[in-house]
Amino acid sequence: MKYTDHKTVEELKIAYVGGGSQGWAWGLMSDLAESGDLSGEVALYDINYEAAKTNETIGNRYNELPGCKSKWNYYATKTLEEALTGADFVVISIQPGTFDEMAVDVHTPEKYGIYQSVGDTTGPGGIMRALRTIPQMEVIAKGIEKCCPKAWVINYTNPMALCVKALYDTFPGIRAFGCCHEVFGSKNLFASALKDIRGIEGIERDEIKINVVGVNHFTWINEASWHGEDLMPVYRQFAEKYKDTGFEGVEEVNWMNSAFANNRRVKFDLLLRFGSVAAAGDRHLAEFCPKNWYLGSEKQANSWGFGLTTVDWRKDRQAKRNVAGQKKASGEAEVTIKPSGEEGVLQMRALLGLCELVTNVNIPNVGQIPNLPLGTVVETNAVFRDGRLEPMMAGPIPTEIDALVRRIANAQLMVAEAGKERNLDKAFAAFINDPLMDLPVPEARKLFDEMVEGTKEYLQEYFK
Amino acid sequence: MKYTDHKTVEELKIAYVGGGSQGWAWGLMSDLAESGDLSGEVALYDINYEAAKTNETIGNRYNELPGCKSKWNYYATKTLEEALTGADFVVISIQPGTFDEMAVDVHTPEKYGIYQSVGDTTGPGGIMRALRTIPQMEVIAKGIEKCCPKAWVINYTNPMALCVKALYDTFPGIRAFGCCHEVFGSKNLFASALKDIRGIEGIERDEIKINVVGVNHFTWINEASWHGEDLMPVYRQFAEKYKDTGFEGVEEVNWMNSAFANNRRVKFDLLLRFGSVAAAGDRHLAEFCPKNWYLGSEKQANSWGFGLTTVDWRKDRQAKRNVAGQKKASGEAEVTIKPSGEEGVLQMRALLGLCELVTNVNIPNVGQIPNLPLGTVVETNAVFRDGRLEPMMAGPIPTEIDALVRRIANAQLMVAEAGKERNLDKAFAAFINDPLMDLPVPEARKLFDEMVEGTKEYLQEYFK
Amino acid sequence: MKYTDHKTVEELKIAYVGGGSQGWAWGLMSDLAESGDLSGEVALYDINYEAAKTNETIGNRYNELPGCKSKWNYYATKTLEEALTGADFVVISIQPGTFDEMAVDVHTPEKYGIYQSVGDTTGPGGIMRALRTIPQMEVIAKGIEKCCPKAWVINYTNPMALCVKALYDTFPGIRAFGCCHEVFGSKNLFASALKDIRGIEGIERDEIKINVVGVNHFTWINEASWHGEDLMPVYRQFAEKYKDTGFEGVEEVNWMNSAFANNRRVKFDLLLRFGSVAAAGDRHLAEFCPKNWYLGSEKQANSWGFGLTTVDWRKDRQAKRNVAGQKKASGEAEVTIKPSGEEGVLQMRALLGLCELVTNVNIPNVGQIPNLPLGTVVETNAVFRDGRLEPMMAGPIPTEIDALVRRIANAQLMVAEAGKERNLDKAFAAFINDPLMDLPVPEARKLFDEMVEGTKEYLQEYFK
Amino acid sequence: MKYTDHKTVEELKIAYVGGGSQGWAWGLMSDLAESGDLSGEVALYDINYEAAKTNETIGNRYNELPGCKSKWNYYATKTLEEALTGADFVVISIQPGTFDEMAVDVHTPEKYGIYQSVGDTTGPGGIMRALRTIPQMEVIAKGIEKCCPKAWVINYTNPMALCVKALYDTFPGIRAFGCCHEVFGSKNLFASALKDIRGIEGIERDEIKINVVGVNHFTWINEASWHGEDLMPVYRQFAEKYKDTGFEGVEEVNWMNSAFANNRRVKFDLLLRFGSVAAAGDRHLAEFCPKNWYLGSEKQANSWGFGLTTVDWRKDRQAKRNVAGQKKASGEAEVTIKPSGEEGVLQMRALLGLCELVTNVNIPNVGQIPNLPLGTVVETNAVFRDGRLEPMMAGPIPTEIDALVRRIANAQLMVAEAGKERNLDKAFAAFINDPLMDLPVPEARKLFDEMVEGTKEYLQEYFK
Repeated sequence: MKYTDHKTVEELKIAYVGGGSQGWAWGLMSDLAESGDLSGEVALYDINYEAAKTNETIGNRYNELPGCKSKWNYYATKTLEEALTGADFVVISIQPGTFDEMAVDVHTPEKYGIYQSVGDTTGPGGIMRALRTIPQMEVIAKGIEKCCPKAWVINYTNPMALCVKALYDTFPGIRAFGCCHEVFGSKNLFASALKDIRGIEGIERDEIKINVVGVNHFTWINEASWHGEDLMPVYRQFAEKYKDTGFEGVEEVNWMNSAFANNRRVKFDLLLRFGSVAAAGDRHLAEFCPKNWYLGSEKQANSWGFGLTTVDWRKDRQAKRNVAGQKKASGEAEVTIKPSGEEGVLQMRALLGLCELVTNVNIPNVGQIPNLPLGTVVETNAVFRDGRLEPMMAGPIPTEIDALVRRIANAQLMVAEAGKERNLDKAFAAFINDPLMDLPVPEARKLFDEMVEGTKEYLQEYFK
Repeated sequence: MKYTDHKTVEELKIAYVGGGSQGWAWGLMSDLAESGDLSGEVALYDINYEAAKTNETIGNRYNELPGCKSKWNYYATKTLEEALTGADFVVISIQPGTFDEMAVDVHTPEKYGIYQSVGDTTGPGGIMRALRTIPQMEVIAKGIEKCCPKAWVINYTNPMALCVKALYDTFPGIRAFGCCHEVFGSKNLFASALKDIRGIEGIERDEIKINVVGVNHFTWINEASWHGEDLMPVYRQFAEKYKDTGFEGVEEVNWMNSAFANNRRVKFDLLLRFGSVAAAGDRHLAEFCPKNWYLGSEKQANSWGFGLTTVDWRKDRQAKRNVAGQKKASGEAEVTIKPSGEEGVLQMRALLGLCELVTNVNIPNVGQIPNLPLGTVVETNAVFRDGRLEPMMAGPIPTEIDALVRRIANAQLMVAEAGKERNLDKAFAAFINDPLMDLPVPEARKLFDEMVEGTKEYLQEYFK
Repeated sequence: MKYTDHKTVEELKIAYVGGGSQGWAWGLMSDLAESGDLSGEVALYDINYEAAKTNETIGNRYNELPGCKSKWNYYATKTLEEALTGADFVVISIQPGTFDEMAVDVHTPEKYGIYQSVGDTTGPGGIMRALRTIPQMEVIAKGIEKCCPKAWVINYTNPMALCVKALYDTFPGIRAFGCCHEVFGSKNLFASALKDIRGIEGIERDEIKINVVGVNHFTWINEASWHGEDLMPVYRQFAEKYKDTGFEGVEEVNWMNSAFANNRRVKFDLLLRFGSVAAAGDRHLAEFCPKNWYLGSEKQANSWGFGLTTVDWRKDRQAKRNVAGQKKASGEAEVTIKPSGEEGVLQMRALLGLCELVTNVNIPNVGQIPNLPLGTVVETNAVFRDGRLEPMMAGPIPTEIDALVRRIANAQLMVAEAGKERNLDKAFAAFINDPLMDLPVPEARKLFDEMVEGTKEYLQEYFK
Repeated sequence: MKYTDHKTVEELKIAYVGGGSQGWAWGLMSDLAESGDLSGEVALYDINYEAAKTNETIGNRYNELPGCKSKWNYYATKTLEEALTGADFVVISIQPGTFDEMAVDVHTPEKYGIYQSVGDTTGPGGIMRALRTIPQMEVIAKGIEKCCPKAWVINYTNPMALCVKALYDTFPGIRAFGCCHEVFGSKNLFASALKDIRGIEGIERDEIKINVVGVNHFTWINEASWHGEDLMPVYRQFAEKYKDTGFEGVEEVNWMNSAFANNRRVKFDLLLRFGSVAAAGDRHLAEFCPKNWYLGSEKQANSWGFGLTTVDWRKDRQAKRNVAGQKKASGEAEVTIKPSGEEGVLQMRALLGLCELVTNVNIPNVGQIPNLPLGTVVETNAVFRDGRLEPMMAGPIPTEIDALVRRIANAQLMVAEAGKERNLDKAFAAFINDPLMDLPVPEARKLFDEMVEGTKEYLQEYFK
């Protein structure tokens, strides 16, 4: 890494762990091509080396595009160490296990009457996924400690909070944070409310200022303003107006969300119940609430305006992306530069001192949420500036939602410990405590054991 | 109050607010008659003066019993001030409203599919009852501040936590605490477990040492020992053994509980889920859990081994007690001295320096439970000794049950504020947040409004 | 206040309380003239109406300067209310009492062997000054609550922490913060260290990123970086190099400091003792330390490279400024636009959404320093952005300096309470606890009484 | 260990580490001989095996005394493990190093103008002593973990707080606590005040109820009562009356204190300054305060009514005790049963369930003092009862003394870390931060190095 006249940085090295991934990787390539003040290399490491190789080819094609402001040397590596050595930034975007394991996560509980709309963050599925992921995160954290201890580490993998926690638990000196675009959508929704209720048009999402408190995918906005005007009353009117019909609104900027549409009725219902704005998509939110609120059955979910994303759908989407990737790599399909809507490159620029940025981020609680335990990975605003990532005080979780969020935060602590100790009984203590879980204890254990059995190829560490 | 040679106290004045009550009052009379080192007067104040007069007569009959070790002058007063002036102890045991209001508390929600087994502590009924009680507690606290600011104040009224909180919120210097016998039963249950599992007989409840954390009626025991031996594994075996059949055991010592039998299956289920012993009766415990765990329907409750106490049953019991009272007063029926199983008189003796006592008590949190908000009224062990009531460190609520308890603690804070401000909208915020509440918001509001309407005679303060 | 196309704000109203002041007022006038995206009016209120009138004339002269980018209408008001009504910003810069009272603050303790280098923040003099100021701040806060409750309030008056605390104690909803330029100088010193030790030239103070923890004038920097490089080792080398000779460095930008030169030997000594950088000038720092470290005598102070600022010197300076003011007003002397080095106008622009700013500020502790009591007014970094002032997590006071800072924070709480209750005995409890105080208790009381007597014209409220 | 009918315990094993010691060991022998409900064996381990052997002989002589109610088998062991194996209680009373090392602790600083009246707890001497002791405590804690993990461990060694901390840091599951008789004396003083000021005679120390907050030897009483009457005003009058002359009072019960007389003028002065009662002897208290308050010189100490205990005096006393020990062992001198005034045996009986006890004790802070860091070893009241040692809430350190105590608590944390890591530079950070330390940094380092050099035989671990 080399500064040129304080205004540009050259010879940057980015290590991409999970470098064969598609959505996130291609978005990053596009954003990097547009970042005129950065350049360097991107090392792509993936357990699927071929996938990384394909991305190497795709990435390097960006350099030839007419609109490319910044050239990057993409290359696949055969080892994690090779990718990490000397890295200035590490991006982590991995898949823990295959979609077959995810099918167990999501669909086995359905046999027991437990439905999940996503299944990658919380609920039975999220817990199982965490158990698979934690040992992998430990390997990555140890690699970082050894090869690039000062690197900034951006995680996109779910379950977000538990991934970030595992990184810090393994290497406490790590400079890691987790990014998630769910909150951005809520800013857009405030802009929609301003337009719908007050007739004010043309507000950009970044003009809306919010305070963020919570844990990833169960993040809440308890203050929002625009030019100093309190937007909470506006939003309440908006929620009242659309609580029965839902609000479809304009398409989100982020293409990744388009398949996951919802009409915000869960979000509106939560607002009217508790007075704060739940900031993630409804499919995520429903999973954190007691089962019979929104997810008592598929029908109930549909009646609230959202569907259950099946793993078959995901498999199908991936097959299509594999084809698309091959075509991009071979030149049969175009690669194009367009903003991904993600903030990863902006965060890098801020951490390099090329701009300042206030945005929401997932890091361990050092007091920014005083009424959650220290060490819980929380999502709040933080300041990114030259060489520093500093959390802002978010203040306490509001009383009305405190117990809801705390239940999730406590589950996080229990699962983290279970993972660290490779202790399935401890994992079951979290499992039985999940808001979606209303089975009698013996039934719950049966489900748990069935899920462990179904994913045990990736749980070998727990049986040593 | 006058000390005689450090060993006995004479001329003590006890003010009994709700002095026309039956169960509690008669138990106290019996215990006072047996307390050889105390004597003095008991002023009985009640909004029902006749009831207090009846108790005056009954109380004074104890002095003539052969076994009476200690004579007390009982007299009814026409004003609260008269009763309080110069009191060394104040006992509060009142009924907020009549059983007609309680019928609204308990049975109106049933029309909406919400069942309550008690309805006086939490749930829709407990919240309504609190709204009626808080203004009354404020009057009593102001009276104490004026007439006997140094008196020790023992509250028996439910909802316990909110009553004690209202006393402290009104007069922060008050020396009040709330007593509840529910935890004693759990000590007996540990003794039963020792006998059943380990064959050890003859253990008295006071030989079992426990740590108590929680809020009244949702109190938990996370440590228990006997002669230094950890009893938690014994209890777990006991719970496994009886989790399906329940455990009837010997009759409790406390006669007041006899009508409220349960077979501890809820308590055992909670242990197996969460690892701590819930210390109240199952009828209370079920009300603090998400609705569909134990109270989804009357049938579900019954299947867990407990019934829903109806207000008709209470009315009937009271009618019988009225007759019994008349007979006791007229001499047609005997009054007898037998230990009530309550600790009120023991606590008085300890506070006067005649003994030392460690027992569970309800007082504001000053840190004895570090992970509940300061000022929440919590139930933990405390030391009673000469002139001092000092909470012991209970430690944090265990992670597994933390969110369950916190939800109740937060509701307490919300209802306390609603009551203090006479603000029904704030009360609704707690109402919608209750674990038993699974109605859609508009339905919930309809129920709330109906309950307010049905009890509005005692909610006048909220409509000024 | 009116936004024009999001980029400029017109019709802004600034109320200046203490609007007859000189240094601060003239600096603000110059900065406002340069702020091209703001315009409006400045209402000047002062108990010395004539002084405000003079500033009215001076202020309006700026509009005629060739370099003036922004025109402002200055006018004196006869009442506080008139100035405050409708204000968007309130600036508070008052003198509590006259220099005669300050002479008592600073010089009476010298008769008892207690020396103060400033005497306006801590020590016997700071405490007395606070007692005079608190009632005045209460008047101002009540005025703001009544006339402009949403206004942003910038305080420059000392004692800073106690002034800000009095504002919040009186009107908890106030949007006030205190600004102080002392920390800026320390950023410059880091730049000097980079140049001196590492040979890197041309670093601007804003390129240095720091973490700030403490209370005003006893603020500490425990992290500093430049482009991600840790500057603490560099600074330590710098301190070792100059610990005996001191470091004079280039003149500060801020003209107001020029009379108060020091050679940083106290700052270097504190670093070598405790490992953190004390961020204020040495004259301030010495007053917070145990008496015999730096202020055992005037000679000891001088041996550490700083002098005791006498009140005669201040009187003399004021006389000169009065003359300068008259000349400016009459046109005999020029008014000129040059940056004051203060951040007031920048903060206003950020709060209006015209830029974002991270800087140090004095506000009540809501957890940004977790090991100081909540409600203490602390100095830490905060984010200023559109309609929001949000503290950043500063983290705990480092162990080595924790007790030193806490002593000051506790004194703040004691003096605040004494002031609020107009209770001189409580003030004495803080007085006897001051680090500079080593008198026997009766002697200390004699000094205290003498100081009260000498300033009692401004302590009338305490004798009612 | 074997219970006989719940009322007596036989076959108890007590391990005495430092079993060749004199004062403490002989007191324990006498108290055990009087404890009718306990019997068993006492294993004496000492690095000086001969001394343990002598005590074996002395101990066994007690069994033959006419007043002996309880027989104990005393025997010296050659290894620590042998003593610890199977122990129910462990008593630790060791001397870290010899009196030659203590001479360095106490007298080397005098060459630099720093005087210490005791030198075993705080100040330069206390820090050095801690550095020697911590590695020894680690060895003992590991032995306990291995040989008797459930044993109750009573520590009498100084520096108390750091010894207890080292035990817990090494073996977190240890059931250790530290006992100190200093607070008892303060209870006697309250009784004296009641007599002197109010004319009430015959009050026993145990009738006085107090609240205790602080760290060992710098413990404070902020509440005291007798039969519910607040004794603080009485004590204040008492302090005013004797602040200049001092109060000699009757001889303490505890014979061990008799050589260390003081007239409480420091204690009275601290009360008048800060409003709380410092509970240790003046010689200890003075060492925790800024140097020039009481210990600026030997003369100043004397003027406050206390002397500096020299190590020559200690050597002389030990020589006499050695002779006395030989005579006791040989039968030339008598052994006699008289209460030691210590509470060790009473605590054992309470922990065995034979009584209940509330007394002050040194254990890690789990929240009993909410405004000191968790993990600091603090001194507060606790309940000793059957198999449990439970701290009572002591509440926050009062604001007036908060910073004084915190400075000591922070030093404890720093020295503990330095000891654990065998890091002399970290120890110096505590050294320079000590209240008695007013040397310039280079001078302080010179003193530190000289003290390390002088005691290095016992600091070998720090040079590996």
